[in-house]
Amino acid sequence: MSFKVPRGTQDILPGEVEKWQKVEGVMRHLTNVYRYPEIRTPMFESTELFQRGVGDSTDIVQKEMYTFEDRGGRSMTLRPEGTASISRAYVEHKMFGNPDQPVKVSYLGPMFRYERSQKGRYRQFVQFGVEAIGSKDPAIDAEVIELAMRVYQESGLKHLKLVINSLGDQEVRQAHRQALIDHFAPHIGEFCSDCQKRLEQNPLRILDCKVDAENPLTASAPKLTDYLNEESATYFEQVKMYLDALGIDYVVDPNLVRGLDYYNHTTFEIMSTAEGFGAITTLCGGGRYNGLVEEIGGPESPGIGFAMSIERLLLALEAEEVTLDTEDALDLYIVTMDDAAKLKAVEFASSFRARGISADIDYAGRKMKAQMKAANRLEAKYVMVLGSSELEEQAVNIKNMETGDQEKVPFHDVVNYLLTHKQ
Amino acid sequence: MSFKVPRGTQDILPGEVEKWQKVEGVMRHLTNVYRYPEIRTPMFESTELFQRGVGDSTDIVQKEMYTFEDRGGRSMTLRPEGTASISRAYVEHKMFGNPDQPVKVSYLGPMFRYERSQKGRYRQFVQFGVEAIGSKDPAIDAEVIELAMRVYQESGLKHLKLVINSLGDQEVRQAHRQALIDHFAPHIGEFCSDCQKRLEQNPLRILDCKVDAENPLTASAPKLTDYLNEESATYFEQVKMYLDALGIDYVVDPNLVRGLDYYNHTTFEIMSTAEGFGAITTLCGGGRYNGLVEEIGGPESPGIGFAMSIERLLLALEAEEVTLDTEDALDLYIVTMDDAAKLKAVEFASSFRARGISADIDYAGRKMKAQMKAANRLEAKYVMVLGSSELEEQAVNIKNMETGDQEKVPFHDVVNYLLTHKQ
Repeated sequence: MSFKVPRGTQDILPGEVEKWQKVEGVMRHLTNVYRYPEIRTPMFESTELFQRGVGDSTDIVQKEMYTFEDRGGRSMTLRPEGTASISRAYVEHKMFGNPDQPVKVSYLGPMFRYERSQKGRYRQFVQFGVEAIGSKDPAIDAEVIELAMRVYQESGLKHLKLVINSLGDQEVRQAHRQALIDHFAPHIGEFCSDCQKRLEQNPLRILDCKVDAENPLTASAPKLTDYLNEESATYFEQVKMYLDALGIDYVVDPNLVRGLDYYNHTTFEIMSTAEGFGAITTLCGGGRYNGLVEEIGGPESPGIGFAMSIERLLLALEAEEVTLDTEDALDLYIVTMDDAAKLKAVEFASSFRARGISADIDYAGRKMKAQMKAANRLEAKYVMVLGSSELEEQAVNIKNMETGDQEKVPFHDVVNYLLTHKQ
Repeated sequence: MSFKVPRGTQDILPGEVEKWQKVEGVMRHLTNVYRYPEIRTPMFESTELFQRGVGDSTDIVQKEMYTFEDRGGRSMTLRPEGTASISRAYVEHKMFGNPDQPVKVSYLGPMFRYERSQKGRYRQFVQFGVEAIGSKDPAIDAEVIELAMRVYQESGLKHLKLVINSLGDQEVRQAHRQALIDHFAPHIGEFCSDCQKRLEQNPLRILDCKVDAENPLTASAPKLTDYLNEESATYFEQVKMYLDALGIDYVVDPNLVRGLDYYNHTTFEIMSTAEGFGAITTLCGGGRYNGLVEEIGGPESPGIGFAMSIERLLLALEAEEVTLDTEDALDLYIVTMDDAAKLKAVEFASSFRARGISADIDYAGRKMKAQMKAANRLEAKYVMVLGSSELEEQAVNIKNMETGDQEKVPFHDVVNYLLTHKQ
């Protein structure tokens, strides 16, 4: 009998987990200074929430959801993304009634999509994201985009590209949708079966299709930007004005559609332009979703947000050969010579740890030499050796492993000695 | 259409989430000084792992698992606890080959059990726990217990009770098992149907049954402690010796069994003795599980660990009326008078946040008075008001909201002023 981690998921082990903690620290810091406090929603929600909130025509809902019946016979789905759940919470907890709008929140946690597993793409992956719900001020679009960029910059990435687009409002999308149907309908037989379904459901998604990306009709399709009405065009201009004021470089790509049904107005992606990063270059995607909160039963509450995968961020750091400073050295290793010394070491370890000094001792009954080797492997800053003579003298040599210096310190003074010397 | 959080789960919203972050900070600090780095395993595993690792006869496996078939037809189960997954990872990643044993790790994340929902008991709940796998040194049992106690103490709890017991080794459990069968068999008809099944599967669990707790045969049942062989008794004595050396108070309760099949030797629970804490007083449970790693296909690797629910910890803090210091005030609110000022405010906010100064501005088009109210609600430490005269003068009054003092600061000096004054 041997068990393996489920396909498409991974264990994150000590030695690797420190990198996760490091970038999560960057996220925590930035969400604090930008005032996007954390919200936590459950790992699963009713399936219908995602059908309505993510959209019936999306790949996620059609092909990728982990759906199951709970023991009460209700259809539940492991969350494939964060926005639907947070919009649900916004409505359920009546946050639209908060005096301060938009409500700004961030989240960090696992999401689940049953996709083909490949490098940098997992069935369980971790997303960091933010949402600002309850404002249609173009300045908040710029703030959200800046926050996403800063997560990458403060993590150490340099080779980034920001792509933005506007999908316009409902009226724009209707007009463009009809133009797309007129454009594709006569030749839809040349397209894949998914696109044939999309023609009526959501023809915009044809532009996003991986299978038909090379079809010349895709390149010649009517561009949404040509259909923007005055209000949408003005909104987009203002977003760009704020990005310019913030000194954020961007490229406008009229084909940037995003795979989710709920987007309108501003959409954006951040890509890695690092050499050798691989075929999937998108690190982060986001956009505005005016209408989503109404779709799931709330009052009109325009929103914007983004989501990024930690897995991809770490891959991008690797591609740019950025070394994260994850140093977290052991302060002290206590080598023990016999049972009496061991008992004293256990007491010592306890009092050091109570004062914030990290300490470790041997629990494998190893000889002194093997314990010294362990202290080296663990990169202990200090080492003390306890045996019968130390117990008798009630004093012990404390050795600085970097300089090789050692000093004899009375037992009663050891905690203070370490507190002042460990820096 | 209106959506609700799934029954037995909860949203953790800003205002509440800070308490979670605070106690999680205590856990992160302690796992650092005790050297139990974090490990992260997936939210679901193959169902069979839990059947073998948690035990077929447990309530968890029989009644409480969220089991589903994935799109590849494999039976998966949302993890109901952490030890089986971590033991699986220990074997899969061959951590038994690490030169430093035991391998010590900690985890923090959601677990899933389909239980009757009630106060302090959720179907998705968050557990913090540690495991030390690869040592049968009684000193590590004491270290693990001390670490659990310290999480509570450093979070601020005072009314705690530690209960310990020994379940002995395989030989002891066999002899005791037979004695239990002999004791209960003649009267098993008086017991609930679950207990009737337990008689053959795992009679120890009858002692743990909530339904039959009052049956006098339960009180008069043969005690495991009377069956301890010399090795088990010595082991237990040594654990107690280390606890004594560490100054940790405990009570020995021979009926402490724990609901999981895999425990042997040391088991323990930490209870809240706070008045009005409610019927379920157990905050934390743990114990030794020599044999578990072999059960799931690894080499002999004795382990010990504990798990505690964050929800219960927060309830206990509430019962003891402990106030967590979760203060995280906004450094600066920028009030804006018109569009030109808004653009400048957006630039300012960006440069403040880049230097670690938390800042917020209005995205709701409110008048000055409403923005001032918002600054008060958000408890901003400083406020600045930007209008046309400030833009003309290129200087702004910065007001300390606590003292009421204000000072005029040139635009080019505002970042430095805030950095030196925000403390």
